[in-house]
Amino acid sequence: MKKLVLVLILCSVYSGHLVSQNILAETYNLMPWPKDIKVNPAKFIITSDVTISISPDNNGRVRNAAINFLRRLSNRTGVFLDKGFPLTNKVGSIHIAFDTVSKLSIENDESYSLIVHDTSISIKAKTDVGAIRGLETLLQLTKNNETNYFFPGVSINDAPRFVWRGLMIDVARHFQPIDVLKRNLDAMASVKMNVFHWHLTDDQGFRFESKVYPKLHELASDGLYYTQEQIKDLVAYADNLGIRVIPEFDVPGHASAILTAYPELGSKDGYDYTIERNSGVFDPTLDVTKDITYEFLENLFSEIAPLFPDDYFHIGGDENEGKHWDENKKIKKFKRKNKLKTNHDLQTYFNIKLEKILSKLGKKLMGWDEIMTPNMPTTAVIHSWRGENEGLEKGGSLISAAKKGYQTVLSNGYYIDRMLPVEHHYTVDPIGDAQLTKAEQSRILGGEATMWSELVTPLTIDSRIWPRTAAIAERFWSPKNINNVDDMKKRLKNVSFQLEELGITHIKNRDVILRGMTNNQDITSLITLSKICEPLKVYKRNKDGTEYKTFSPFNLFADACVVDAEDASDFNHIVNNFIKDSNETNAIQVLSYLKIWAKNHDDFLKLTKNPKIKPLQNLSKTLSEVSLILSETIQNKNISTENLSEIKNHIEILNNPFVDVEVVIVDALKELTGYCEATYLSN
Amino acid sequence: MKKLVLVLILCSVYSGHLVSQNILAETYNLMPWPKDIKVNPAKFIITSDVTISISPDNNGRVRNAAINFLRRLSNRTGVFLDKGFPLTNKVGSIHIAFDTVSKLSIENDESYSLIVHDTSISIKAKTDVGAIRGLETLLQLTKNNETNYFFPGVSINDAPRFVWRGLMIDVARHFQPIDVLKRNLDAMASVKMNVFHWHLTDDQGFRFESKVYPKLHELASDGLYYTQEQIKDLVAYADNLGIRVIPEFDVPGHASAILTAYPELGSKDGYDYTIERNSGVFDPTLDVTKDITYEFLENLFSEIAPLFPDDYFHIGGDENEGKHWDENKKIKKFKRKNKLKTNHDLQTYFNIKLEKILSKLGKKLMGWDEIMTPNMPTTAVIHSWRGENEGLEKGGSLISAAKKGYQTVLSNGYYIDRMLPVEHHYTVDPIGDAQLTKAEQSRILGGEATMWSELVTPLTIDSRIWPRTAAIAERFWSPKNINNVDDMKKRLKNVSFQLEELGITHIKNRDVILRGMTNNQDITSLITLSKICEPLKVYKRNKDGTEYKTFSPFNLFADACVVDAEDASDFNHIVNNFIKDSNETNAIQVLSYLKIWAKNHDDFLKLTKNPKIKPLQNLSKTLSEVSLILSETIQNKNISTENLSEIKNHIEILNNPFVDVEVVIVDALKELTGYCEATYLSN
Repeated sequence: MKKLVLVLILCSVYSGHLVSQNILAETYNLMPWPKDIKVNPAKFIITSDVTISISPDNNGRVRNAAINFLRRLSNRTGVFLDKGFPLTNKVGSIHIAFDTVSKLSIENDESYSLIVHDTSISIKAKTDVGAIRGLETLLQLTKNNETNYFFPGVSINDAPRFVWRGLMIDVARHFQPIDVLKRNLDAMASVKMNVFHWHLTDDQGFRFESKVYPKLHELASDGLYYTQEQIKDLVAYADNLGIRVIPEFDVPGHASAILTAYPELGSKDGYDYTIERNSGVFDPTLDVTKDITYEFLENLFSEIAPLFPDDYFHIGGDENEGKHWDENKKIKKFKRKNKLKTNHDLQTYFNIKLEKILSKLGKKLMGWDEIMTPNMPTTAVIHSWRGENEGLEKGGSLISAAKKGYQTVLSNGYYIDRMLPVEHHYTVDPIGDAQLTKAEQSRILGGEATMWSELVTPLTIDSRIWPRTAAIAERFWSPKNINNVDDMKKRLKNVSFQLEELGITHIKNRDVILRGMTNNQDITSLITLSKICEPLKVYKRNKDGTEYKTFSPFNLFADACVVDAEDASDFNHIVNNFIKDSNETNAIQVLSYLKIWAKNHDDFLKLTKNPKIKPLQNLSKTLSEVSLILSETIQNKNISTENLSEIKNHIEILNNPFVDVEVVIVDALKELTGYCEATYLSN
Repeated sequence: MKKLVLVLILCSVYSGHLVSQNILAETYNLMPWPKDIKVNPAKFIITSDVTISISPDNNGRVRNAAINFLRRLSNRTGVFLDKGFPLTNKVGSIHIAFDTVSKLSIENDESYSLIVHDTSISIKAKTDVGAIRGLETLLQLTKNNETNYFFPGVSINDAPRFVWRGLMIDVARHFQPIDVLKRNLDAMASVKMNVFHWHLTDDQGFRFESKVYPKLHELASDGLYYTQEQIKDLVAYADNLGIRVIPEFDVPGHASAILTAYPELGSKDGYDYTIERNSGVFDPTLDVTKDITYEFLENLFSEIAPLFPDDYFHIGGDENEGKHWDENKKIKKFKRKNKLKTNHDLQTYFNIKLEKILSKLGKKLMGWDEIMTPNMPTTAVIHSWRGENEGLEKGGSLISAAKKGYQTVLSNGYYIDRMLPVEHHYTVDPIGDAQLTKAEQSRILGGEATMWSELVTPLTIDSRIWPRTAAIAERFWSPKNINNVDDMKKRLKNVSFQLEELGITHIKNRDVILRGMTNNQDITSLITLSKICEPLKVYKRNKDGTEYKTFSPFNLFADACVVDAEDASDFNHIVNNFIKDSNETNAIQVLSYLKIWAKNHDDFLKLTKNPKIKPLQNLSKTLSEVSLILSETIQNKNISTENLSEIKNHIEILNNPFVDVEVVIVDALKELTGYCEATYLSN
């Protein structure tokens, strides 16, 4: 029943053709999938004559996007364009028209229409931001045959489902230089995301150059901070891409860095505040009972606010366990005096004061969901992050926030640093099956993927954000019923590779790490291993005795591996097919992998060993051995009990983590073994 | 005779061992090779206990370098260091001592000594810059066995041969963002280079934010320029690495960009000055007879000078052909009136006036060698770039400049954008066999590799600079007699791969380009081709009918290929061995390549074709065919006249350029064919 409805909704009629989303999705590499797409038989061939014009004449976002479009199109197709810049006073073969230039806000209209004819293309939008969203869609439409690149005939009407489609990057745990952020902004824009949430401070560092309180960046950043000029530049860069920037200054907890610079604001006298080098939740907390704390925050926020033109200002507010508050007699006394029973009450007292400070500065207070306490005014925006893992219900506080009258944004389910597969995030819907009034629904602004950076450096951060965040972007933009996981994965593969055009390093840096591990030997055998291994999920990397500090190496084998390991899902699929029908063709497919793995250890052994490679030896050996027996079993259609038990022992070994990775073909190997046992076991 | 002297010079005695450079060079991966190195039997094992201390306590270059050293050491070895920052008030296992903090200048002392004992390492230097040079040497010493990384026992005394060891990057033809420059500065520092010459303006763009003349960056940069904040930041970044920054503002020629903004300074009234999109030498030239030109330059240089603390200021002065001067009656009249017979005289008139402006600003004028005209005062510094290619004698104007009393810097022979093999540059010695007095010698400050950017973008620039520039850096730093090409190449291979640690993209971006060419198909067959192809040399890429504009695609097959193609020199070597002695072992070596190439076209044919791959088809096919016949010939020790003539036809085809590359195994194939003809021809 549900399926039928889905197909009907996704169908669209054009010149007599009825086309379902799935068929279209095989043909068009679009992500996020547009609201409405119709095909037509046209074909716009990309030659050196392609030109762009814009009306009205524009020196801002659209011109910038058009120039970048021409560069990217030329690079993608190899076509030498005659005109490298938009035409003025002439109509180009691609014509862009829009009505108004946006001031970015949650009210902004990002809709557009796009029609591809044989010799002309038209993009129309109410705003300049809508127009640049359309240009990204057009670029994604690029196709080719043997002799030409072309845009296929389509007619698209598109608009986002949610107004808030964000990515948070934590630059405190590991600093991320401006160029890392810029390339990620480019990538965000390419999948129509529109909010960059900049987590600028935490226990591990204060990354904002304060001229009012210079000790903050001087003493609490290790020299790794953004100057105000760089911040202005980044905000302008994002604005040009139609991306709002929300700064986060996390208070009153996560305050080790602030208190390293200004210990007098701390809750524990005489405590030796220092920049934190470990991961976790720590005790240093602002003393929210002191007047100087508010004076400090008011001055600091007054300095920060003008640099970020957006209406929203994130004050964190999460994970304050209040240990230092409980240990401080003056704070206890203050609570009693002010009838603040719990630390939550005290934090609400603090939040309400902050809300007033920010309000004076023209900003709306946003905070992680801990700030949603009974007395918190509904002018605050609730950033829902906790869920089942934190003992709350699935979907966390989002729905209840909306019902209570708060604007709210969802990150629970979008914690990409947890290293979970893409479908995990893709299938989280912000609203889900909740029954909401129109007003309640409108308070659910959208969501944000969160890239916490305890375990990533500039070398690896892209491979933790991408490509999964593109699928999350689709969740935020596309209609709710665009939810076919296989289809999404097919498109994601293309989108992922095209992110390289924007300088995203998620593919290329794997080999950099592996070359480094081998002292530049042949890395083929390590690539093979990396394609079936994934870094330990849900922060387990920090739990196996290895304590990662901020300055630990993050170019190890686990850092070369990524979520959704390339060969694993293919192998799982192939094994399933084989078990369903063990015909020759399916057997050959299974064997093709098993043979590669069976042979791989020979290549691994050719490497001159060193302490970085050595721990992989057992993984490599066990994989080869189990693959060899399994491939012989399948070829001979026969297995002995000895071999079967050997296989099981090997799989048991592979079922344990190796150097912070897990081997993600173990389940498939188990199923395959089960099948072999049931089918081929002799005597 | 010469060889004997060389060995004797290179030998050094330590605890009874006599060790030649070649033997040491096989053991130690140092580049540039130090002045004096002695080995000792110690072994400093790198464990989590490694610490660094600095005396005197330092918050500048040495502390910065020490922190980076710890990060790089940890990343290279995978060792989790306990202490991520230099110790204070304690002696670390690595102790660095220096006397004074340098103000960078050509007088600066960069010498250092380094001793590695079993449990302690000492670096001593007169200046902080010397100390950080020593740290780079120490990092290059890292070795490993199966269980440990370690520093081998050595005792090094080192100092540079030349005080000026530079790299010029042209950011006008193709803009290079700050992060590209920063990673190249890191790489420069890793091979002890100390001058970054920043070619900031040219016909294709003015890259400096001028607050005095804002039209310069507003109208003549396409929005691609450096803000003054970014410039300050970059200069500080370089200074922290012991690298001086020399700005170049090219006048009076190469002035299209300047004149796009301020046409009133031009030599041709009513000329339609625009930002140049092509490569070449163009006519737009400042009118040096007008007072407003000097007013403009004085104001502009006064704005620029304080941002660049270095003593030197480069005014270009090259390639002014004076066409617009000749066409301007007022200029002709001015020349007559001022008794300036030639355009050279007029340019000297201009240069002398500039020299006075710069002198007032505390700067020494430096210019390309055209400025060395009879009346030019010897306070100017001559940057020697022209040589045999420009109709001058080999080595160009350097020696004569030194003899005439000018300080001088050599770039002739170091034009890395000409895409010539590394030995070409490595074997150019700035002084050569010239007989010079001590005073004359001292005027030869050193040299600069020049990266002109007509044909490079941020995607490819690193692969054009590195690794060859590391060999040039050795030429500038190491004693003259360190000149064994094979030995250099062996060390360069390691240095090249280690540059990836600093984010240099010369290795990883090849695959990015090839993935882009194939729409993310298996690129193995293209990698094989790229390893025997080199981009056309000496600007030929622009001559075959394809006119590259600044906005043309630079991610084509030629851009994936590099100079010193990886498999070519190995194959050449193997073929030589085989021809000398066609024993089984040598035959197997030759066959190993031939078989890969013979098979490669099958893989190539598996690719779904597109317009970017298609032009490679003939190259791939011909290579496979010739390789197949040759490998059969060698295996059968027999060749027919038909096959021989087929081989020759194939080689003839391979001898022509394909899509802007040349196949650099052609000579080896010819030799091999000649051998086969002489040895195996039947009847």
